[in-house]
Formats: sequence, structure tokens, C-alpha cells
Amino acid sequence: MGDTVPLLDRLVEALRCLPGVGAKTAQRMALHLLERNREGGRRLAAVLAEAVERIGHCRSCRTLTEDDECAICRSGQRDPAQLCVVETPSDLAAIEAATGYRGRYFVLHGRLSPLDGLGPAELGLGQLAERLDRGEVRELIIATNPTVEGEATAHYLAQMARARQVRPSRLAHGVPLGGELEYVDRGTLSLAFGTRVEVTD
Amino acid sequence: MGDTVPLLDRLVEALRCLPGVGAKTAQRMALHLLERNREGGRRLAAVLAEAVERIGHCRSCRTLTEDDECAICRSGQRDPAQLCVVETPSDLAAIEAATGYRGRYFVLHGRLSPLDGLGPAELGLGQLAERLDRGEVRELIIATNPTVEGEATAHYLAQMARARQVRPSRLAHGVPLGGELEYVDRGTLSLAFGTRVEVTD
Repeated sequence: MGDTVPLLDRLVEALRCLPGVGAKTAQRMALHLLERNREGGRRLAAVLAEAVERIGHCRSCRTLTEDDECAICRSGQRDPAQLCVVETPSDLAAIEAATGYRGRYFVLHGRLSPLDGLGPAELGLGQLAERLDRGEVRELIIATNPTVEGEATAHYLAQMARARQVRPSRLAHGVPLGGELEYVDRGTLSLAFGTRVEVTD
Repeated sequence: MGDTVPLLDRLVEALRCLPGVGAKTAQRMALHLLERNREGGRRLAAVLAEAVERIGHCRSCRTLTEDDECAICRSGQRDPAQLCVVETPSDLAAIEAATGYRGRYFVLHGRLSPLDGLGPAELGLGQLAERLDRGEVRELIIATNPTVEGEATAHYLAQMARARQVRPSRLAHGVPLGGELEYVDRGTLSLAFGTRVEVTD
């Protein structure tokens, strides 16, 4: 907006911290808030300030929570024998929304990636090892992403589990439901073909 | 994020007031701020709160400004005989950035659109009329958008100007520079063809 409204420039600049928001989008957002939705802007400022102060990590599973321990870890309804390891809180939310899983979680906040400075310590693997050492967990469900780094992390986690007599398991890979074979990527198709299962009824 | 972190849900909901941001994007933004850029989130909250409180409208030209009157209206360097009417502060910014225009502006914050409840009063046309009545302005440069409503507004503004012995002018329409004729829309091409100008040198 040129040099005429410094506060507006600062707002545009601040909005660029949002993912996928460049200079043009940030300007559109700033003007939208100021011209058409000041009430929304005021509410966003208040909620955002509160959220960055109050939301921390659960001391048991490391997911995001307002409390010391998250609702899932606190719940007596969840099976402590199953522990599902995910990369991010959104993966946790996706599994909660899609499946009827009743066990507990552990959130890595990333994947093993030495080049980005993410090693076992950053992912809280020491804390995970302690938890496995306590002997309560019997199955470690490894739900890292099927990327190169996610697979490497899965391999590492599986070794950790086996060393502690915990059974590691992995989400099934294959052709997604509702997809057409023609459009499934080669790697997935080849894997699904190789790991085909017998049809029984 | 399910029902586990109410404050996070409220943040996702609040982010949806941004234009073009749906549920999925809002969740990604919220997690990005909390997981990777709390400092940016904190700054955004502070700047946004300040901006919605402090940025108002210039009393002369109605553009956004932190002060009572904007920098352009306050400047003694701008020609008071030329007044450019635009729909939004971003149009003003675009003209400032692209042209060497040294006159002043008037911002409508919209265009005549009775169905949306935007009439002459909402666009501040009374204030514009007073300004034209003062006799200082000699040319009214109408830079509304070339849409149906923008054209109707331009027509209305031109009549206002003529009634007050002010010369109305309009941005030139035609083929954009750098475009290829093949891809120019029919209406523009037909207009540009009809209003062709003689080549002189």
C-alpha cells in the first residue's frame, strides 16, 4: 500500500507468516479485514494471542493441548496397550476422525531428518523409549507418512519396539479406495500387486 | 482437531474470517503457527489488534489511514485540480505504484449496487459533490472497474461532474500491453477495434 499507511504495511507483513500467503494475498486479507470484517479481525487477534500463549504440548503424548495432559491421555476409556505414533497433531486428528481406534498416541512433531536437525532427541524418542520400557504398551502402531524420511523413521521405531518386546505394526499400503488403477502411481501399484492377498469369503 | 482442544478449534474458526480460507486451510494455518512460528503468530495478533483499532478513513478522500487525513491529502505537492475516483484503497495503491499521477483521490469503497444496499450515500457521493462544488477540481478522472456496475457508477459520476462544470475523464480501454490478440476477450477486442486510433509519427 505504498508508504502512506505504515500500520497497514506492518499488518500485510505480519500476515505473511501464514503458510501459503504471499505479498498479494496478504494485502487482500488485510484490506478485507479492515474494509469488511473488523469484528472478525478483532476476534482473530484475541483468539490467536490466547492460543499462542496457552496451547502447549501434552506431557505424555506431546500433542497440542491447553492442559498439562491432553484429553486422550487423561481418558480412562483408551487402551494403554496400543500406542500409535504419528508425525503431527493433524495426523492424530485424521486418525481420530476416520477410525474407531481406542488406543493412545505419541506425536513426533516431525520425522527423522538429520539435514533439518531433526534427530531422535528432537522427536522425543527418549520419552517414547521410557514409555515402552514401562511395559504397558504391547503394540506400537507406526503411522508415519509413506515418504522416504517417514519410512526411515518407521524402521527406527520398529527396531526400538522389538528391542523392548513390543510388537510393531504399520498402516497397510495399497490402492486407495475409490481410486482408479489408471491413476494410481506406479510405486503404489507395484507394491499393491506384489502384496496381493487371497480372496476368501 | 476434534473436540480435544477447544481453543485450537476456536483459532481455526477465527482464521476462517480471512478471504479464501476454508476449514482445511484454516487448520493448516493454525497448526503452522502453533508448531513452527509462535513468534509470527504473536506478532500477527498484536499488529492485527492495533490495526483494527487504529486504522480509520481519511476525512477528505475516505481511503484507509491511521491519521485524521491521509498523507496524499495532506501533501502540498499534489495537484488539487485533478481528482481520481477509485473503488477501493487497493486500486489507489495500484495507480500510485504504476503511474506518475500527482493529483488527489477519492475512494468510494464499492460501486453503485442497489441490490447490495450500496447507493450514493454509502459511496460518499454527497461528500464528493461538496468537494466538486468548491470549484477547486477541474478534472474528475473516473477509474472505477470496467464491470457492469463499475460502468454504471462511472456514468453517474460523469453526470455529477458535468453538472458542476468539471471535466470527467475515464481510463482508456483496449488491448493490454504484452497480451496476444488471440487471447484477448471478444468484448475488449471489439471495443479496441472500434475505437482504433490513427497512427501518426
